[in-house]
Amino acid sequence: MGQGRDGEWQQWRARRPPSRQIHLDTAAAGRSSAETLRVTAAHAEREAVVGAYVAQAEAAPVLAEGRAALAGLLGVAADGLAFTESATAARDALLAAWPLPAGGTVAVAPSEWGPNLFAFSSRGLALTELAVGSDGAVDLERLARLLADQPPALVHLTQVASHRGLVQPVAAAAALCRAAGVPLWVDAAQALGHADTATGADAVYATSRKWLAGPRGVGLLGVSEPGWERLRVSASPLELSSLPDGTSPVRLLESHEANVAGRVGLCAAVRQYLAAGPARVRQRLAEAGRLTRETLAGLPGWEVVGPAGAPAAITGLRPAAGQDVGGVRDRLLAEHGILTTASHPARAPRDMTGPLLRVSPHVDVTAGDLGKLRDALAAMS
Amino acid sequence: MGQGRDGEWQQWRARRPPSRQIHLDTAAAGRSSAETLRVTAAHAEREAVVGAYVAQAEAAPVLAEGRAALAGLLGVAADGLAFTESATAARDALLAAWPLPAGGTVAVAPSEWGPNLFAFSSRGLALTELAVGSDGAVDLERLARLLADQPPALVHLTQVASHRGLVQPVAAAAALCRAAGVPLWVDAAQALGHADTATGADAVYATSRKWLAGPRGVGLLGVSEPGWERLRVSASPLELSSLPDGTSPVRLLESHEANVAGRVGLCAAVRQYLAAGPARVRQRLAEAGRLTRETLAGLPGWEVVGPAGAPAAITGLRPAAGQDVGGVRDRLLAEHGILTTASHPARAPRDMTGPLLRVSPHVDVTAGDLGKLRDALAAMS
Repeated sequence: MGQGRDGEWQQWRARRPPSRQIHLDTAAAGRSSAETLRVTAAHAEREAVVGAYVAQAEAAPVLAEGRAALAGLLGVAADGLAFTESATAARDALLAAWPLPAGGTVAVAPSEWGPNLFAFSSRGLALTELAVGSDGAVDLERLARLLADQPPALVHLTQVASHRGLVQPVAAAAALCRAAGVPLWVDAAQALGHADTATGADAVYATSRKWLAGPRGVGLLGVSEPGWERLRVSASPLELSSLPDGTSPVRLLESHEANVAGRVGLCAAVRQYLAAGPARVRQRLAEAGRLTRETLAGLPGWEVVGPAGAPAAITGLRPAAGQDVGGVRDRLLAEHGILTTASHPARAPRDMTGPLLRVSPHVDVTAGDLGKLRDALAAMS
Repeated sequence: MGQGRDGEWQQWRARRPPSRQIHLDTAAAGRSSAETLRVTAAHAEREAVVGAYVAQAEAAPVLAEGRAALAGLLGVAADGLAFTESATAARDALLAAWPLPAGGTVAVAPSEWGPNLFAFSSRGLALTELAVGSDGAVDLERLARLLADQPPALVHLTQVASHRGLVQPVAAAAALCRAAGVPLWVDAAQALGHADTATGADAVYATSRKWLAGPRGVGLLGVSEPGWERLRVSASPLELSSLPDGTSPVRLLESHEANVAGRVGLCAAVRQYLAAGPARVRQRLAEAGRLTRETLAGLPGWEVVGPAGAPAAITGLRPAAGQDVGGVRDRLLAEHGILTTASHPARAPRDMTGPLLRVSPHVDVTAGDLGKLRDALAAMS
């Protein structure tokens, strides 16, 4: 990640509204490009000029193209994709539509996102923990054994953890689950635009605002075709009257009244992502994560939470000297103009033993940015 | 509504992006002002500059002021208001949180919004029809008798009908329901910004995009304080960690990850509405509805669906000569630049016997606009 490599990605930065801040908080929300912002605002203005539903009809080709692109990224058919309001809304729509046996068991990794654990438990589902290696990634041999010996009702994986650089082997798990006839659902909120999310899972949900740097208020649900018949979906006669015959059950889960400007903005963000090249972005984000961990390794008072070589641009820093992580996050922003997250342990209660400082740059991060973070943290200790 | 009166409201039109179209479709979505569009886009840009959650924290005073204003309009405490994604999302959150007895009866007027009927039925609730006068408005004496003799589990009223000018006497019904100990919920999707929605109902839900002319993708749920203890709400430990102690159960129903730019835009739209004067807007919208019905009365081939004097700017036109309403709507738009709605009977299946052409101007409508609609319809017959 020398100057030359940094330079390649400065166009990405130049396409965003200028900021005097060092933004290391993509895992919360990425910085939208000026083009994405323009397209979103232009759709909202068009709604005011010609009427909201006329504007939506005009945008149908853009929405269809974006839908197909997003479906491709999630590894489902275009008709297997539903726009929702957030990843959480998508998860809840899936839980409502895909019946799981009462008291059934959901198998999760210890790194599972806390609100997902809560969503399962509060619906009366039991949780069981998948065996993982020392890095926290699911042990595939032991998964295969579990699927054979004591198949759960569902395997649920958060593909890229929220609090540290940890990527689950979702594609391999999907193959095992499919062979065993056990459904696999994937929370790809931190994975879309970051890792390869076309994994063969039965259902996958994600959000616009993080690694794709699309607008807030837009989420996605993808269900692969074999799963469609599992869905129990109902739509009111009025809703059905506005949809073509043969509309897929997944499309019936799409919210009808919605932040359409945001959806149009997401379609623009996806176009930009595809133009940048998903494989190239993935490689760069992996590099950004490794550089973050290398730069911060050995920093007095902080411990980089592994694995160091994870192909993810999220890094967790554990305070080793009793620092108040919330206070450090606030001072980094106020005194140094560096944006990070103070991660509460409820994000991943089975993996986190205390708060972590989360650092999550996008592709435009430079060695200089990360050096400033290191210096700022060092100066505070 | 002479030239002078029209002139008063041309400022309202001048504050919108210019349009060559005659927009008579507020009941679908109002035309946002340039200021509302600007504020919404500016928030989205600010998210990209300083980070989405920093921008949200900066907007906290604006959101608090808007919340208080909207709560006031809905007649609930500020802590009794939750931002949601749509009126539908608000209704569904209410249905999930406020337990109704299994198989319990919901009393509705024949003019009830079809998707609400479907939502009740699909949750196993029974429907009973309230007695109404010849205009379709609930008969209050017979409501009082029903509440005494055979109280339903819930009374649900759609305050302003979607398909024709019909306003239910919600405040009087609320007093009767409260005295009888029967909860009253109100669908104010067509009422907020149009009628007086501070009615004393136990719960009320509405949308941003129609009469307030706020952004799409934002809805509202209000629950009056006596109802708070009825709510069964759970929140994940992570969500609770981010909320102050003593957060009201209604606020726990608010979606956490959201179209915040749209909420900020709605707050701007509400400020503009309050500046225009709710009573003055209500009076003008009632006048716009009356003028619509007067202008279209006696038009060959069309029958204005009553009541003629309803204080609402929504008018339904019944095709009396076998016209295809969808085709008429399309030709009005394509050939005359006049935007209306073709209303499918599933909008209000207990009141509509066939499709209606819906005409729903905002305050800026002129006698000339309505004359053009009349002429266009006459030319088509």
